[in-house]
Amino acid sequence: MDAPVDIVLTDRHNYNTFQPLLYQVATAGLNPGDIAYPVRSYTRGHPSLTFRQDVVTNVDFARREVSFVEGAPTSYDYLVLAAGAATNFFGVEGAEEHARGIYTMEDAVAVRNTVSSTMERAASHGVQEGDLTVVIVGGGPTGVEMAGALAELRNMELKTTYSMLDPSLCRVVLVEQRDRVLGAFHSKLSSYAVKVLTDRGVEVRLDESVKQIHAASVVLGSGEVLLCALVIWAAGVGACALTESLDLPKIRGRIEVGPDLRVTGFDDVFAIGDMASARLAGSDQPLPQLAQPATQEGKHAGEQIARLLKGEATTPFVYKDKGIMATIGRKAAVAEFPSGLRLRATPAWLAWLALHLVFLLGVRNRTSVLVNWAWRYVSWRRGPKVIAGG
Amino acid sequence: MDAPVDIVLTDRHNYNTFQPLLYQVATAGLNPGDIAYPVRSYTRGHPSLTFRQDVVTNVDFARREVSFVEGAPTSYDYLVLAAGAATNFFGVEGAEEHARGIYTMEDAVAVRNTVSSTMERAASHGVQEGDLTVVIVGGGPTGVEMAGALAELRNMELKTTYSMLDPSLCRVVLVEQRDRVLGAFHSKLSSYAVKVLTDRGVEVRLDESVKQIHAASVVLGSGEVLLCALVIWAAGVGACALTESLDLPKIRGRIEVGPDLRVTGFDDVFAIGDMASARLAGSDQPLPQLAQPATQEGKHAGEQIARLLKGEATTPFVYKDKGIMATIGRKAAVAEFPSGLRLRATPAWLAWLALHLVFLLGVRNRTSVLVNWAWRYVSWRRGPKVIAGG
Repeated sequence: MDAPVDIVLTDRHNYNTFQPLLYQVATAGLNPGDIAYPVRSYTRGHPSLTFRQDVVTNVDFARREVSFVEGAPTSYDYLVLAAGAATNFFGVEGAEEHARGIYTMEDAVAVRNTVSSTMERAASHGVQEGDLTVVIVGGGPTGVEMAGALAELRNMELKTTYSMLDPSLCRVVLVEQRDRVLGAFHSKLSSYAVKVLTDRGVEVRLDESVKQIHAASVVLGSGEVLLCALVIWAAGVGACALTESLDLPKIRGRIEVGPDLRVTGFDDVFAIGDMASARLAGSDQPLPQLAQPATQEGKHAGEQIARLLKGEATTPFVYKDKGIMATIGRKAAVAEFPSGLRLRATPAWLAWLALHLVFLLGVRNRTSVLVNWAWRYVSWRRGPKVIAGG
Repeated sequence: MDAPVDIVLTDRHNYNTFQPLLYQVATAGLNPGDIAYPVRSYTRGHPSLTFRQDVVTNVDFARREVSFVEGAPTSYDYLVLAAGAATNFFGVEGAEEHARGIYTMEDAVAVRNTVSSTMERAASHGVQEGDLTVVIVGGGPTGVEMAGALAELRNMELKTTYSMLDPSLCRVVLVEQRDRVLGAFHSKLSSYAVKVLTDRGVEVRLDESVKQIHAASVVLGSGEVLLCALVIWAAGVGACALTESLDLPKIRGRIEVGPDLRVTGFDDVFAIGDMASARLAGSDQPLPQLAQPATQEGKHAGEQIARLLKGEATTPFVYKDKGIMATIGRKAAVAEFPSGLRLRATPAWLAWLALHLVFLLGVRNRTSVLVNWAWRYVSWRRGPKVIAGG
């Protein structure tokens, strides 16, 4: 659909991160550049689209004006808020200071550097209890993927590259508050995931909460203390700073929108993706904070603006669930489709692989990812395993 | 040659940087991971070789002991000093604070991030004089390669990705104190390099010195002031901190060694590469601070230790010059061989390309570099052009 509009796209970064593969950057399977796509490579084909790298500080909805950290304010006729979410530490003591989210490129690179330098230090200077233990909080797709990737790193990398290290000292512990991982999936797939993770050496702790996080330890709800080198927080996302600062109606931290995705009380402001509270049609249930709802909502918001410009009425957003997937590691994944079809093991893993390659924007990025992956699965060695400032 | 030795290899990084291609990381043509090779990938095939990531603080030559920042001291029977060089700012006012070397991975990533964010800021917020000017100090191979790569970035990237920017505001200035660039090459090749650089839009300033460097300007010897966003210092290397701190005889900042590469006055200490003053056989001329002498010296030092262990006398080091090369950009390079053969333009460029691919350690790194290069030269687009903390 073409509409007679000038678009200003603004973001604090000049690249788009393919978040579903952040865990692979965090475990040194992919380079940051492999899953980052320059925004300008996309905008350059669209003369009516201007990109502005900047940070939004405020929106004056009465004056229809957006303020930035660096440049001059910009006025708008229509505004689409799509600033995403941020890691939510749910107020757990010490979590914000000592645990690492896995939600941004900076997060992923920080985890990668910690894991690499931890192994390096252990190889050079010896190991004490906890020095090589990673605790992952949260058994959703992100937590399961991180745990599986770390287990592969331990099982494969340690044997060859760090043969002087005792694998039993290298623990991966996954802590989940509920009685199963991958709560959004059928319970059979949850059980499968726990079995695979356990087979690969991950210690899965179900029905277990985290009480406190310290610099080198985690205190569980049971009182048990796990000494560790790194705590990865994969327990969920919450409102980003912009959402919090905007004076808009919210439902559990997400901006309240009507069926057409306009913010309640506004004719000219849309909110989409993780920061908005779009619901499943005919239901009160908010949509999950995933890429699928976000991209569909983006398309819908664009179409509504085109309709409004033509003087037409808006239409309600209808979410089309295409299914959910999570990968555990090599030849192990789970997938579940609205039709009721459930896949696991190699078929699910191949489906996951194909889908993620197709979705990665840009031919070049795909090629590089393919080379990295092909090499890794042929050689069982990881690629860019380097501690570098870049 | 096999010798009955235990080897401890120590370095502050756990990767080896392929320095000849740092300028490509700096100009976003390659990912850092493409030219960094994990040391452990090399050491794991050699059980007698232990790697220790640490920083050497001191050597007690009397007690034959090396001290480190992190771990316990290590004693040695033989010591090979090979800590390299550091950027030498030759005391130019403001150089150390405001100019960027191009000698380490950190340097290259910092240059890349400055170039990217400078273009991004200009595209989003407009340009003033100097905002897009890069001044390169030093017309040796590093300076010429950087200037050529930046010119390509400007000529190709600006047109497509940053079409809103006026290319004439984007200046690349190369300042060289002597009357020609690439002083180690034949003067005909120097003239060719200047012609190609000028054709591609680089402002080459010969017979020109740099007096002062400020945060956003360079004052030349002539008094002219160049406003600029970035100053890249490619004017030469000097002693690294370790060389300076060690109480050893030195010649112009480099550790003095005898013909067998042992440090003058020592039976059990060798010094090789950039930090040592090995000379051309039968001459007082020190060998250039390049990879070729360094790798040949490394091999020689290893052989001498094997000889000493067998009770044999040492042999003098004889440098075999295999020729020198520098690339200016696509289809433009120069090469000069001891036989007198001189190449330029496409033949030299193809020779350069082949040689650098072969020398890059490790199959995987080569594959990834090939993909990046092939893609770039087919599409005239650069690959990983992303400002990210990793």
